[in-house]
Order: sequence, then structure tokens, then C-alpha cells
Amino acid sequence: MTAQLSKKGEAWSARFSEPVSDLVKRYTASVFFDKRLALFDIQGSLAHAEMLAAQNIISAGDRAEIERGMAQIKGEIEAGSFEWLLDLEDVHLNIEKRLTELVGDAGKRLHTGRSRNDQVATDIRLYVRAAIDDIVVLLNGLRLALTDLAEQNADTIMPGFTHMQVAQPITFGHHMLAYVEMFGRDVERMQDARKRVNRLPLGAAALAGTTFPIDRERVARTLGFDDVCHNSLDAVSDRDFAIEFCAAGALIMTHISRMSEELVIWMSPRVGFIDIADRFCTGSSIMPQKKNPDVPELARGKTGRVYGHLTGLLTLMKGQPLAYNKDNQEDKEPLFDTVDTLVDTLRIFADMAGGITVKPDAMRAAALQGYATATDLADYLVKKGLPFRDAHEAVARAVRACDDLKCDLSEMSLDKLREFSDLIGDDVFAVLTLEGSVAARDHVGGTAPRQVRAAIARVRAQLAG
Amino acid sequence: MTAQLSKKGEAWSARFSEPVSDLVKRYTASVFFDKRLALFDIQGSLAHAEMLAAQNIISAGDRAEIERGMAQIKGEIEAGSFEWLLDLEDVHLNIEKRLTELVGDAGKRLHTGRSRNDQVATDIRLYVRAAIDDIVVLLNGLRLALTDLAEQNADTIMPGFTHMQVAQPITFGHHMLAYVEMFGRDVERMQDARKRVNRLPLGAAALAGTTFPIDRERVARTLGFDDVCHNSLDAVSDRDFAIEFCAAGALIMTHISRMSEELVIWMSPRVGFIDIADRFCTGSSIMPQKKNPDVPELARGKTGRVYGHLTGLLTLMKGQPLAYNKDNQEDKEPLFDTVDTLVDTLRIFADMAGGITVKPDAMRAAALQGYATATDLADYLVKKGLPFRDAHEAVARAVRACDDLKCDLSEMSLDKLREFSDLIGDDVFAVLTLEGSVAARDHVGGTAPRQVRAAIARVRAQLAG
Amino acid sequence: MTAQLSKKGEAWSARFSEPVSDLVKRYTASVFFDKRLALFDIQGSLAHAEMLAAQNIISAGDRAEIERGMAQIKGEIEAGSFEWLLDLEDVHLNIEKRLTELVGDAGKRLHTGRSRNDQVATDIRLYVRAAIDDIVVLLNGLRLALTDLAEQNADTIMPGFTHMQVAQPITFGHHMLAYVEMFGRDVERMQDARKRVNRLPLGAAALAGTTFPIDRERVARTLGFDDVCHNSLDAVSDRDFAIEFCAAGALIMTHISRMSEELVIWMSPRVGFIDIADRFCTGSSIMPQKKNPDVPELARGKTGRVYGHLTGLLTLMKGQPLAYNKDNQEDKEPLFDTVDTLVDTLRIFADMAGGITVKPDAMRAAALQGYATATDLADYLVKKGLPFRDAHEAVARAVRACDDLKCDLSEMSLDKLREFSDLIGDDVFAVLTLEGSVAARDHVGGTAPRQVRAAIARVRAQLAG
Amino acid sequence: MTAQLSKKGEAWSARFSEPVSDLVKRYTASVFFDKRLALFDIQGSLAHAEMLAAQNIISAGDRAEIERGMAQIKGEIEAGSFEWLLDLEDVHLNIEKRLTELVGDAGKRLHTGRSRNDQVATDIRLYVRAAIDDIVVLLNGLRLALTDLAEQNADTIMPGFTHMQVAQPITFGHHMLAYVEMFGRDVERMQDARKRVNRLPLGAAALAGTTFPIDRERVARTLGFDDVCHNSLDAVSDRDFAIEFCAAGALIMTHISRMSEELVIWMSPRVGFIDIADRFCTGSSIMPQKKNPDVPELARGKTGRVYGHLTGLLTLMKGQPLAYNKDNQEDKEPLFDTVDTLVDTLRIFADMAGGITVKPDAMRAAALQGYATATDLADYLVKKGLPFRDAHEAVARAVRACDDLKCDLSEMSLDKLREFSDLIGDDVFAVLTLEGSVAARDHVGGTAPRQVRAAIARVRAQLAG
Repeated sequence: MTAQLSKKGEAWSARFSEPVSDLVKRYTASVFFDKRLALFDIQGSLAHAEMLAAQNIISAGDRAEIERGMAQIKGEIEAGSFEWLLDLEDVHLNIEKRLTELVGDAGKRLHTGRSRNDQVATDIRLYVRAAIDDIVVLLNGLRLALTDLAEQNADTIMPGFTHMQVAQPITFGHHMLAYVEMFGRDVERMQDARKRVNRLPLGAAALAGTTFPIDRERVARTLGFDDVCHNSLDAVSDRDFAIEFCAAGALIMTHISRMSEELVIWMSPRVGFIDIADRFCTGSSIMPQKKNPDVPELARGKTGRVYGHLTGLLTLMKGQPLAYNKDNQEDKEPLFDTVDTLVDTLRIFADMAGGITVKPDAMRAAALQGYATATDLADYLVKKGLPFRDAHEAVARAVRACDDLKCDLSEMSLDKLREFSDLIGDDVFAVLTLEGSVAARDHVGGTAPRQVRAAIARVRAQLAG
Repeated sequence: MTAQLSKKGEAWSARFSEPVSDLVKRYTASVFFDKRLALFDIQGSLAHAEMLAAQNIISAGDRAEIERGMAQIKGEIEAGSFEWLLDLEDVHLNIEKRLTELVGDAGKRLHTGRSRNDQVATDIRLYVRAAIDDIVVLLNGLRLALTDLAEQNADTIMPGFTHMQVAQPITFGHHMLAYVEMFGRDVERMQDARKRVNRLPLGAAALAGTTFPIDRERVARTLGFDDVCHNSLDAVSDRDFAIEFCAAGALIMTHISRMSEELVIWMSPRVGFIDIADRFCTGSSIMPQKKNPDVPELARGKTGRVYGHLTGLLTLMKGQPLAYNKDNQEDKEPLFDTVDTLVDTLRIFADMAGGITVKPDAMRAAALQGYATATDLADYLVKKGLPFRDAHEAVARAVRACDDLKCDLSEMSLDKLREFSDLIGDDVFAVLTLEGSVAARDHVGGTAPRQVRAAIARVRAQLAG
Repeated sequence: MTAQLSKKGEAWSARFSEPVSDLVKRYTASVFFDKRLALFDIQGSLAHAEMLAAQNIISAGDRAEIERGMAQIKGEIEAGSFEWLLDLEDVHLNIEKRLTELVGDAGKRLHTGRSRNDQVATDIRLYVRAAIDDIVVLLNGLRLALTDLAEQNADTIMPGFTHMQVAQPITFGHHMLAYVEMFGRDVERMQDARKRVNRLPLGAAALAGTTFPIDRERVARTLGFDDVCHNSLDAVSDRDFAIEFCAAGALIMTHISRMSEELVIWMSPRVGFIDIADRFCTGSSIMPQKKNPDVPELARGKTGRVYGHLTGLLTLMKGQPLAYNKDNQEDKEPLFDTVDTLVDTLRIFADMAGGITVKPDAMRAAALQGYATATDLADYLVKKGLPFRDAHEAVARAVRACDDLKCDLSEMSLDKLREFSDLIGDDVFAVLTLEGSVAARDHVGGTAPRQVRAAIARVRAQLAG
Repeated sequence: MTAQLSKKGEAWSARFSEPVSDLVKRYTASVFFDKRLALFDIQGSLAHAEMLAAQNIISAGDRAEIERGMAQIKGEIEAGSFEWLLDLEDVHLNIEKRLTELVGDAGKRLHTGRSRNDQVATDIRLYVRAAIDDIVVLLNGLRLALTDLAEQNADTIMPGFTHMQVAQPITFGHHMLAYVEMFGRDVERMQDARKRVNRLPLGAAALAGTTFPIDRERVARTLGFDDVCHNSLDAVSDRDFAIEFCAAGALIMTHISRMSEELVIWMSPRVGFIDIADRFCTGSSIMPQKKNPDVPELARGKTGRVYGHLTGLLTLMKGQPLAYNKDNQEDKEPLFDTVDTLVDTLRIFADMAGGITVKPDAMRAAALQGYATATDLADYLVKKGLPFRDAHEAVARAVRACDDLKCDLSEMSLDKLREFSDLIGDDVFAVLTLEGSVAARDHVGGTAPRQVRAAIARVRAQLAG
């Protein structure tokens, strides 16, 4: 070692006092985060032992001993008394070691015909499957809360925006249902991903299968898997399901971020469309008057976290040769954090939906600002026979006149309106009201209150189903 | 304007000679890339016109004129004689303008009851649906090519690796089938994504629906959509399907990158497991002896491109308020490039699979290096009654002895072997051969040639179905 | 080939008519995009030839021939008459081939002592260096335009927001200067990146250097490089500079996206703080009244594109063994598109800054909504001796009272105010005005107009420097 | 609430037992992770108090009390006895609350003239600055360890690869120096980022500055900042520095991933170029013979983690309006995890460099496989007067002949060689040896041992400097 290195070396050993050998142990161990898989690990081991006994690979007595030991370990873990050891690297070896302490040779026989490679793959799939089932419930809970809010506001008129400019009047109920649709697609994606999660890798052993006469379909049935993984190399190295889950999670967070953005803007005083209950907001350390919509802002920020985990997992798998490599240990933390973020965020949003106070007056005032019924006038002219493009031009001229006169289209006189097209009659004013405009969009997916109520009924039926 | 600015201004106007007004036009226009949607745009417009006529919103005569005009436009586009104008911004206005030139007022009536917002959403969905159908065919083509290769090599023994270390003997056929499984999941994901692509946004108009008595289900049937989008705000602003498609594409490229990595390593002279046909390789401008596996390397590199597009689209949608914003114009280029990358790569890989020459001797030699049958010896001891953990330890000691003696386990004498366990008898040598090891992994998903052939039959049945 | 495959094969050859051999050629060729490097390629070749002659590796005559040929080629390229051939793969071979046509053996000698690996690395560095120099000019142009806008609005009061809630009054000039700071850091980052771009890889040849007695420092001087790359393996495989450039570009786009978000919100009618000149906006195909802020929306969307390119390039380089691999060909398109996006966006934004009309009345009205001077009241109490935390509480109570009375703090009577603290005297009303509040934040970085003007002077001095 | 919702609601309250109010508290609190900033928070507060006293904003007595209280708090934190309360949200309020308990009103005065917005920004900058300083030391430690390894192997010949094909002979020392260069650029990038980290946001208060007569330059000097942030809005909302740090970190991990990839391949038995000391490797739970290079594999996997954090932070900041939003709380965890990953990985790699055993025989054998000196033959012909392109062709023909004869170029007879060019004389054999080839690349950056030693001296001088 050169003099400089040694000097440098000292410099940083002063700063970093942990010996490297301990550091390597900590660096490569996973028990600090993968112990979260403990109950799934036990569930998988019990199914494996049951099959080994059924196939006469281990004795019935060994199986009974394994079950007895595992019951005790489960109790210890749930009671918080199980001692996790860094030296035993991961959740699997910690449990197996304890099992052998408790039941002796039977414990040493448990690992027959399997490897940590297929064992951990099984554990994670059980974990992700449970997470999906929770998330589907939470998504539907949020959908119902938004549907309730939509129902209360099926007739509440607000401006619909495109480009943040007033476009056409819509109802707040209709707006809420847009999110119900988005979260509905999220449910579908989670359910589709579940099909690919729910396949059993166990039996792939290290990478090639095992020489013992195992019955993989039996284990699959015991654990509720739909199928077995059909290639052992793929079974131990496949992390598609984690990526697909995070991609579906990233889309959930995209929707959360869009809704949050709107809530934050709507609660800004110049807009003032809604208020959010105090328990989802906080104050300022310096400004005594502040009430900040912390929950939607933070949720919007957490979008980055989940996008990041997706990027991380894709990077992880890029260019990995078959079969298992240690890189794959890095699949867990992003997955766990994605699950936690989704579960917390969806729970809070379902509750927050009930804490939104709608301010119909502010919404109505805003809808009257910006010629929201201009398209209605154009449609009116088309129905009188003008080609759409010509109608569009005539109305554009009328809007420019309103701009000069600082009035709304509905406030112009009939004579003035007829300057832009002599097809206009006194039946025009019905179509220029906000209510008339909204009610006229009366087809599947349109904003008419009748359609909003039909859509609500459809969602309720779906959720009840 | 300050003196400095004007000086700086001159500095860069010298460099950037395009006037800003032209730059804005170019910056905001999309026709240069969205003209790729032209035939889908026409298809959507024809279905829309058909419905407008059926609902008496336009006359039968207008519809006929629109069809006549569109037929001519389609011809012009296919012939390359259609003149695309930047001034008309996008594919939609270019076509509508030309239509009006050709058929007059009927052309101006086509846009009745729709908006560019729902029109472009429809076009992209038609495009993505077609892309998915192509990609599914190509994925299955690649799966078949790999299955053929697997069948030719169902008995070809190679070392199975974990951590790039020799783990256990497998067959090359079994290895190829791992990729057949991966690309099979890709097919499933594409098909699942298709369900969410195949919903009709048309009728959402700008964002709120339209006042015309449209029949959205009719248009959906005409265009082969499974359903309509059930909320107009969502219909015009939803780009989930583009993201979900790119996420599925990113996983395809993950698999391509893993396969490429292996092909490149296998073709490296020290490994020498395969050769790739010359037409997928290139030489060097400086080193006369080189033959480089360019296609798999480039494909591995293109993984980044598709991951990047996925990141880009997620970023695009993060925090966007409803409904349509101009940001969304940025959805197309990443989508188009993802489709192109997938289509080209999958085609080439299917062909390249047929250009792989397997070198069984090099594979066999490698399998004999690294105690690939050590697990078989451990399993042998377990079958003689030793608990797995004890067997594992005995074999570890035997391997260390081999290492000192520089011999394989199969080359040790029985006496020497019995030093590590007296359970070892002369039946041990059968399990220490590569063939014995491979054949013994004889369960669903295992590497035994019998199982490989069964898996091949299963894939062929699936692909024929 | 199996029957199914052949059937499938036919299915997709119908669809994909290009023969695979042509597809491979197109897939691996780069000339369609790397011809953008042509003039840098020639520049690099001329410097190389000059050195070869100076070192007597080629004759002076050969060098003269090469220069003559290159001059003609440059002319052909600039005139658009150069014929780019896909068969010649890339820009380098296209130019070398043409050179050999024009000058014979001298052309064949040009590639002495170099390889495409170091040649392309040199070309891209020359390209990125030029791009950085352009982008720095454009960033400073935008900074000056924003500084002008800030100067015009050094006294224009608007509400400062945190959490989109009114926080404290600020000036619009101060707000604009926040972006001047951000784009200033972008300049620094580009300049720092430039140092690492501006090192010469030429001379690394394929990967190991060359046996010819080359003079790399001479070439570096000729081409204006600060240094040579000090390791040949690294020189040909390093793409850090491209990633670092794109990371700096991603931050520029982050700033653009934040500014765009604000412009879009500010132009929304409920907020109405600004108007953007028509030439940066567009209308709607259906809603005749719309004026949409297309340019900032699109720019916000383009953020995703640049983030995506960064992700793509990082993915590209992850896990690549040394030295050059074909993967690296994928570095160019994301780099080129990042440069184009930055150049166009910065130019337009600098121009758009001059097209922003500020609406001081709307800003002032908004500042009066939300107790923007509550902090000033707390500070007032602190100056009278109350600990800050106690002052904060007293003001919070006063704000709640205002909320009930629907009045601003400045509109309360002195008696009423004294209910919350008897430290309040009639000098309080001066601190409760917007002007008083703003003027009081009079330290470096504060919003006081005096400080805003000082900051403007500082920026102008920096830009003039 | 509808019946369905209530049923669903029950379903998930059974599963998720935490009350929502506690969940909101946990969701929005940051103390569990930001307590890592505690000592930096105290450092910042002490500098702030010192300035407040110097400016007579607080009394000298208050300052002394604050210092006394903070000294005790620091002791409590270091002793692990400080009680962190979730109810107090974050590190700042926890410390301030305790301070007020300890020193009464003086504690309540500490927050005068600042806000949590500028306080947290200051804390993170102090944290990142310290992290950068540590990482620079660790990078240089790794560089020295690699330089030592390079020096030991300045003459060790191995094949240089491009496209994983044997290209030209190089030395292992030269190869190691490529990484020394990469990590050297990482040092530069960290140092450049430090300049932008090391600016003081304190004094920006909530967003607009403060009405107290603070002296920001004084605080900057006390805390060792190079400058103050020049705009208060920017100061509280800027997270560029976190993104720039993570981008620099992503490049470090790119280099780590490339080196890891090579170590893993080199340790694969077919290649066998190196062995890695046991303490960086682990065994298998099933295969008794395995020794897996866990550390480089895991480090390669951790690349994804850091790429993901970069993506997450960019997403976080995209489109955020000024000034501070709660989203920004999400900046910390990715930053902390990036620092931890870099620190641990760099420490381990520096140590692992000393645990690499080089196997020169395997390297030499590999270099002899693949016509590594073909370029040397071409260069030889060029020196005899043949244009390079013609020489390249002649050698390509010779290589094809060797391929048929299964011999190396150096093993051909002179007569046979002269079939490809009559310029070849018996001096050719000197250039066809590995040693001759390597020694001939004798210019700056080339692989000649003389140059490798010069490069080592250059690095040592730099590191000593």
C-alpha cells in the first residue's frame, strides 16, 4: 500500500468506523427488510413439507415436527420475540435455523428438493398477491367514496377546463366520475397482473428442478396458485411480476397526482371551488393564517417515489443473464415501498373524499366567465343548417364582440346576436344557459345530470357485483 | 431592451436564423409525426360520418360526399402525392381541409359532434390496437423460432449458471424455453393492454360530450371497439393505454436485453458456446479479424430507448389537471418509436434464432468445469437418509478435496468419496454424470429432456390454438 | 421449420414486406441520424490528417489531397448534393468512401492510426461542445428577457404562494428573478459539463492506442480541446459526457416546466394574472371562444422527453463491459433530440417573455385575499418584545376573527386588534399594507423593490461580463 | 354512505386497523427519516442565533440560553436519549420544542426571522455538502486501490475486448486505469455540484425574506457557505442540488455497474481471469460447490436504486409552481438512500480491489485466441507503404487463412504470410507477439507498460496534491 493510500485510508477509517467485514455482512444481508416476508415464508414451507410427506420424500413424522416448529416460530414472530440475526443473512435462513433448533433433523430435511432461489420467488409472489388483493379493495373503496361525492353533486355546475381555460360547463359529479373511471382501470390492471403473479415457482430449485419426485401442482393447489411456472430457469429469475405491479402502481400514482393537482388548484383562494377538511391540512411555522392542503401535495410528491421504483426495477433486470443473480435481492425494497405508498395513499384519499366541501357558487361564477356556452351556440347554428366550420367562425366573431362589450353571450340582445347569423332566433337563449348546455350533452359518457346518474348506477352495480 | 440583450440577441439570431414565428409554428405543429395516423384518422372519420347520417345529423348525400372525398385522399396519401402543410398544424386539419376542397360543405359538416380532442384519442387507440396485433404475431413468431431451436437441442447439455458460476447441468433446449416463457407473458400483457386500448373515446367531443343525438355504440361497433369510454373528461385526457403499452414494451425489451447479453457472452471466444450467422454481425474498421455480434448488442442498447419512452410518458401525465392539455401532443413520438423498435427487434430476433449455430462440445466442456453435479451428490445422500443440510456439508467437503486434487467429483475413487460419507456406494457414479443429472430433473418445468419435449409440445399446441 | 411457424411466418411476412437482410442493414446502420455529425467528422479528420503529416506518418501531398477532397465533400453536404448511402452504414464510411473516390490512395491513408471507435467519440464531443455553447447563449438570452420583465415589474405586487395558498405579498419582478437564478445555475452546470466534454479521445484507436507515432496533444490543440483522454479504453467507451449533458438538460426542462405551470395557471381566467401574446397560443377546433397557452403547455410536456432520454442513456451504459460495444450507437438520437428540444424551447421562451402582459389589478386583488400580511403582524409583535412563537399564536387568533368577520387584518379596528395583544399600537397599520410588507423585506434575496433592483443590476453585470 | 361502501369499508377497516387520523399524522410527518438531519439542524440554528444576537434582534442572554439548550440536546441525541415525537412532525419542531422546555422564552425567540422552509433547505444543504466531502474521499480511496492494482499489473497482458470479442492485447494495469479515470470524473462532478450546494438559503424565511434586519452573509461565513442564495423564492423551492447530486451518483453507479459486470464475467470459470477473496463472496443453500461474487452482483443491482432515485426526484420537481410545496418533503429519503448506497459501495469496492487475485496465465491464453495482433500486422504493412484500407484487406485475408489452418498469425510461416502481401519481411514476427503489440502503443493514453506507469504516476501526483 502506498503512503498516500494509507494516509487517505486513515482519513476515511476515522470517518467510517465500521470494519469492512461487518460492512460486507450488512451490505449483502437482506434480513432487515425481507423479514417482512416471514409469514409467507412459513406458509410456503408448510405447503412444501406437506407435499414432501405426501410424496414420501420425508416422513409424516418429520412433517408433523416441521408443522409444530413452524407454529411456534409464527407465534414468536407475531409476539415480536423472534430474534433476527444479521449473521443468518436473510429471512429464510433465520427461520430454518430456528426450526432446526426446535425440531432437529426434521428441520434439516425441510430444504430437500428446493433452493433459496425458488423459495424467495415463492415468498415474494405470495406477498405481491396479498398486496394486490388489498389494493383492489382500497381502489374500490376510493371509487365508492368518489361516487358518493359525484352523486351529491350530479347537478353542481362548474366550468370544464381544457388548457386550464374555461371550455364548456360540466357538473362536478361528472368530473369526479372521470377519476372513478381511472381508478377502475387501475383495478383491472392489478387483476391482470395478479394472473401472472399467481404462478408457483417452487420446484425450480436452484435453477434446473430437482431430482426428488416432487408434485408441484399439489403445492400450487395448497397455496392457491393458478398454475406452476413452466420453466425452472425462468421461475427463479423472473421478476416481471414485480415490474408489472410497479408499472400498474405508477399509473395509480399518476391518477392520484392528477387529482391532487386539481384539489390543490381548486383550494387556492383565487379559484376557491372546494375546501378540504382540516385534518388533511396543516399550518405554517411562520405564517399564522395558512391552511395548506398537505395531503394532496404530499401524495403528488410521492408519485416520484413510485416512478423511481419502476425505473429502478427495470434497470435491475436489464441485461441480466440467466438464471438467478444476486442483483435480484434488490427487488424487494422498491416493491415494499411501492405497496406501502399505495396502501397509505389510497386509504387517505378515500377518507379525504368525504372531507371535501364543494362551493357551488364559486364554481358557477367561474363557469360564467369565459363564454362556456360558445360551443352550444355553434351547435345551435348547425342544427339550423349551417355547416359546422361556418358556425364555428360565426360564433368566434360573436365572442370577439362580447369581449369588447365585456358581456357574456347570454347577455347579448337577440338583435346583436343576429348580426353574426340570421339563423339565430329567440330560442337561442335556452341553449346559452349553463343548465341548458349541461343537460344537452345527454349521451353515454356525457355530462348531462341524467347521464351522470346513470354512470353512478353503473359503477355501484359493478362494485356491488 | 437593454444594450446587452440586444447584443446577445444579435449573437444568437446570427446562429439561429429561423424567425420565431416560424419556430412557434414548427414547435406546436404535429403534422410531421402524426401524419402516420392518417389512415386511422380517415377510418375514424368514415365511421363518424356513417353514424351522423344514420342519426340524421347529416344527410345521406353529405355522407356519400365525405366517403368519396376520403377515398380520394386515401389514394393520394398511399401514392405519396398528398401535400402535408405545416400551416395546417396536424394530420386532422390537413385531411379536413383537403376534404373540404374536394367536397365542399359536406366536408365542413364532418366535424359536427366531435372535437380534435376525441378524434386524436380515437386515432391513437386505433394505431396502438393495430400495433399490439402486429406485436403479438411477432412475439409468437419469435417464440416458435426459439421453440424450434429448443427442439433441436433438447438433449444438448450445457452448464446452467447462477451468478455466472457453473451451477448444475441443463440442456440448451431448456434454456431457450425460458425465453419462450418470457415472451409468452409479453403476449399476455399485450393482450390485456389491448382490452383497455379498445374503448371508443369518440363522442366525448371537446371534454363534455355533444349536444347532437349521437350513437356512440354504433361507432364503436363499426370500428371494432369492445366498449365506449364511459366518461367524456376521462376519454379525452386518458393516456393510460399508451403508458401501459410502453410498460409492456419495456418488459419485452428487458427480455431481449437478457437474451442479447447471453448471446454476446456465449459468442465471446473464451466461452464459445454459439456462433451467430454473419448477416447479424459486422466487422471492424481497424481490426481485420473481428466479427462482432452487432444485432444483439444494438438490441440490448435499444432497451434504454424504450425504458426512456416509458419514463417520458409517465412524466408527461404526472400532475396534469383535467381535461385535455397541449402537453398530450407529446404522447405520439415515444409511442411511435416504441412500436418501431419492438417491431424491428422482434422480427430480427425471430430470424436470428435460425442463424444460431450451437457448439455442443464447448458447452459440454464447460459443464464439466465447476462440479456441476455436486447437488446431485447431495440429493443422493439425502435419498440414503441423510438430512439435506448434513448432505450439503458433506459434499462441500468433497468439493474442497476435488479442488485440491484438481479433479471432478466423478473422477474421484469410490474410496476417496466414502471419506466424506459412508452412505456412498458404487451406484453414485450414475448420478455424477451430466446425462444422469439432467435426466433426473424430471418434473414439470425441470430440465430433463423428457420435460423439455413436453414443454415444447405444450407451446406448439398453444401457438397453434 | 414447423407448419405452424411457416403459417405464422407467412402471416407476418404479408404484413412486414421488407426482407430481413434489408431490415438488418437498416437496423444496424446509423447514417440516417449520424449524418448530422458530418461537418464535425470532417473537422476531426482534417486535424488528424494535419497531425499525421506533421509526424511524417503520411506525406504532405497526401494531406493536401485529403484537404482538397474534404473541401469538396463539405461543399456537397452543404449544398445538399452529397449522396448518403445506407450500405455504407454511417457518416464516417460515407465520407471516407467519397474521399477515396475523389483523391484515391490519400483517402485510404486517412484512417491510419485511428478507428471508428475514437473517431465517433471525437465527433460527438465536438457536437456536444457546440451544443453547449449555443445553449449557454440561449439560457443567457432567456435570463435577460426575464430580467427585463422583472425590471418593468419591480414594484408590481402579487401574492406570493406556498402550497398554492396566499402566503406573503411579493413583487412580480422578484418572482421572475427566481427563474433568472434557476437558469443561471443551468448555465453553470453546462459550463462544468463542458470541461469534461472537451477532452480528446482521438488516438485511442480501437481501444488500446496505436502503433503509429501520433501526437495527440497536437490534435487536441487544433480542435480546441483542453486536454486528451488519458486512457484509451475509457476514451472509446466513455459516454458520461452525454449523460451529464442530458442531466443538465433535464434540470433546464424542470425549470421550464415549473415556469410553464405558473404561466398556465396565471392565464386561467379565475386567476387572470397575465395574458400571453396570441402568437404563442392557439384556438380550438370546436370551441370558438378558446385561447389556449399552447407553448408553455407543450414545453411542460417536453420535459418528459428529456427526462426519458436521460433514463435511456443511463440504461444504455448500465453494466456495459469495456471497451466499445455496439450498444453505444444508441447514444446519438436521445442526445440530438435533447439538444433540439432545449434549443427550440429556450428560443421560444426568451421571445415569449416579451409577450407577457402583466395584469397588476388582478394580482393586487389576489394579494388582498388570504391575510398575506399576517406574518408582518407577528414580526411587529416580536419587535415589541413578544417571543416569536407567542406572536405567531396571537396572530393566528386574529386571523380566525377576521375569517368570521370576513375582513382583512388591515380592515380591523385598533380596538379589535388589541384584543389579541395589547402590544399593538396605531403604528400597526403601516405594516399591514401590501407596500409596507414588501418594502420591509429589505435584505439580500428579499422581495423589497430596492433588493429586486439590486439583484437585476447584479444579473446584468454578470451577463455583460 | 351507501350500503356497499359501508360493507367494503368494513372489509378494509378489518384489514387496516390504524385509524385514519393517525395515518394522516404518520403520512405527513417526516421525523422518522429527517431526524438524520438533527446535528445539521442544530448547527444551522446556532449560526442563526449568533447572527440574531449580533444584529440585536435577540439579546446576548437569549443567545447564550439557546447555546446552552442546544448543547444539551446535542448530547441527548448522541446518547440516544432524545425522545422523538411523531406528534411534533419533523426534526425541526422536535428540537425547538425541547429547546423551549429547556430554556423557555429564549427558545421561542429562535425562530425569529426564519421559517421551516429556509431552515430545512439549509439543513439538507449542510447534509449534502458533508456527504459530498465523504464521497470524494471514498472515490479517491477507490482510485488509489485500483492504481495499486494497476501498478502490480502494468505488464500483465490480457486481451482487450470490443463487442466481447478479442480485439487487441492490452495490460490489466491499463484496464484498471480506465476505471481510475471514470472515478476521477466522478470526483470532478461531485466537486462541481458542491459549488451549487454550498449556498445559504437561510434568510429567505417562508418565501419572501423577513422584516428583521438579518445579516445573511454573516450566517454564510459561520456555516462555511461560499455565497447566499440570491432570491428568496428560489432559495426555499430549489432542489436542483439534490437532483444534481443524484445525477452524479447515478454516474458513479454506472461505473460501478460496468466494473461489476467485468468482475463477474472474469470470475466465471470459462473466463477465469481473476478470483475475488472469499469475504466478498457467498455460497449456495443447495449447491455445495458454489462461490458466488455476491458483492459485485449486488452493487450492479444497486445501480437501479440510484437511477430510480434520480427519476423520482426529477418527477417530484416537474411542474411544481413556486414557492415551497409539501411535495418537497419527498426529497429526503431518495437522497439519504443514495448517500448510503454510494458510501457503502465505494468503501467495499476499495477494499475488494485489494482482494482481487489476477490469473495471468488465463489472460495470456485468452489473448492468444482471436488474432489479437491482426491490427499490428496491418499497421506493419502501412509502415511499409500500403494505404491503411488496403492493408486492412490484406490482413483480413490472412486471418481467414489462419481460421482455416487453426493457427495464430504468429504461427504462420513467412512464406505463407507473404502470400497476402510481399511487403512482409522476417521483421514481422516481432510485431506479432503480444509483448511487441502492447509495447508499440506507446503514446499518452496507450496501453504500453511505459505509458501505464506514467499514467499511474500522474494519478498518484493528483491524489497526493
